[in-house]
Amino acid sequence: MEVELAKSYGFCFGVKRAIEIAQSTPGAVTYGELIHNPLEIERLKRDYDVGLATSVDDITSDNVIIRTHGIVREDKEYLKQQGKRLIDATCPFVKKPQEIVEEMSKAGYDIVIFGDEAHPEVRAVKSYSHDLERTFVVSDPLAANDLKLKEKIAVISQTTKKISDFLQLVAFLIQNHKEVRVFNTICNATFKNQEAVKQLSQKADVMVIVGGKNSSNTKQLYFISQQHCSDSYLVENADELQKEWFEHKNLCGVSAGASTPEWLIQKVIQKIKQLKD
Amino acid sequence: MEVELAKSYGFCFGVKRAIEIAQSTPGAVTYGELIHNPLEIERLKRDYDVGLATSVDDITSDNVIIRTHGIVREDKEYLKQQGKRLIDATCPFVKKPQEIVEEMSKAGYDIVIFGDEAHPEVRAVKSYSHDLERTFVVSDPLAANDLKLKEKIAVISQTTKKISDFLQLVAFLIQNHKEVRVFNTICNATFKNQEAVKQLSQKADVMVIVGGKNSSNTKQLYFISQQHCSDSYLVENADELQKEWFEHKNLCGVSAGASTPEWLIQKVIQKIKQLKD
Repeated sequence: MEVELAKSYGFCFGVKRAIEIAQSTPGAVTYGELIHNPLEIERLKRDYDVGLATSVDDITSDNVIIRTHGIVREDKEYLKQQGKRLIDATCPFVKKPQEIVEEMSKAGYDIVIFGDEAHPEVRAVKSYSHDLERTFVVSDPLAANDLKLKEKIAVISQTTKKISDFLQLVAFLIQNHKEVRVFNTICNATFKNQEAVKQLSQKADVMVIVGGKNSSNTKQLYFISQQHCSDSYLVENADELQKEWFEHKNLCGVSAGASTPEWLIQKVIQKIKQLKD
Repeated sequence: MEVELAKSYGFCFGVKRAIEIAQSTPGAVTYGELIHNPLEIERLKRDYDVGLATSVDDITSDNVIIRTHGIVREDKEYLKQQGKRLIDATCPFVKKPQEIVEEMSKAGYDIVIFGDEAHPEVRAVKSYSHDLERTFVVSDPLAANDLKLKEKIAVISQTTKKISDFLQLVAFLIQNHKEVRVFNTICNATFKNQEAVKQLSQKADVMVIVGGKNSSNTKQLYFISQQHCSDSYLVENADELQKEWFEHKNLCGVSAGASTPEWLIQKVIQKIKQLKD
């Protein structure tokens, strides 16, 4: 059995940048998981003493790193009031939708955010609206049907969503409203990884996607892979791999989410090869 | 053989309004065809002495009616300079895209007009742009591929285009640009007539669409009809009907463009019934 990596996979610009920021501020604490990958977070703690706090009141360090997904506006203001030094590792591609939501809500648009209400990126983006009552989060293109929207709508997407789903939502809005101001905030890196996994999964007979199980972009890769290759698996680490997945297979495709470090991907590939021997 | 009219067909709000305006200003001249229906234009000449000029310099009356499709800005200004009294029968749904193009071009957006470059509505709409070099007309969704556009785009449609084609164009633009400001300027009446012709042509075994052959919305109805019923015909008047179209048919569906008067539709239906006897 051959093992082939997708043409584009793994770490994106924002994640690389955030890790560099964390590595250059040892002793700091990130508020929320810096990136959605538990093993990389462990490594940062072990090698750089970068801690993790899950509540604003549990932060022991004076230096607070803002995670790649951003944090809600109120928390940012609260931390400033507490005299903390904020080190902003918010991905610039996530900052953009925050700015758009702020500007469009001031301009009187109804706002539709395509994303998962509970995801930290979406919670942060939404918090920048000046009119929360006219700001709606939908995770399913069809759910827009239930919204009572005005004639002028601004629509953005969580950076890690599938473009085809976003377009479906947009098409629905355009058919039913006079002006739809569409900001394509889906990240290019996400898009490239999605395209590459699509291509690979069309020819592979087993697929392994490596990444955090709470990572939105990793899950999207897994869903795309599954559409073309029914034997697709999502693993967080090499231990989860099972020998029988690879029996009687010719080509195993591998891809990884934007928050999955290279060392982890290589470990998984090594293990796949061992299992086959 | 039964004859069934589409649930929605014929005269739209803008056409009705224009004809009422013309009838209330006998002796006036329309600059360009008031609506795209030669028989109705003949009737207005015969019964209300409303003339037709095809060039700004051929207008003999002091009272000039602006056609439903609107006229280009330069012509409007020229006629004003000539001291003409302008009676505006531009459909309000066509005026809207003119205003959008003016506003968006001032705001620095690249403008994409989905429509036929030579159609009077599109020529008029385009003329309101303050930056003609950054204003593009595409008649085919795929043609957008060839445009070199900036990151901020405003897109509108000729009022009589098919919504599915417009959405295809928009999807392409969204995938390749940061902000696409979509103004759904497709007329509701057009949309309703299109939906109705789709439903009827799915069950009919012969379809007759009545309307001017230079009428964009009539042609759209014909194209939609053809997709579902291969025996679809577009006629301007009853004389064009042919007996053999209706042989061995069970259900003849009839629809008509937004500029087709009721009296003409009834004449066509009568003739179809005669041919069957």
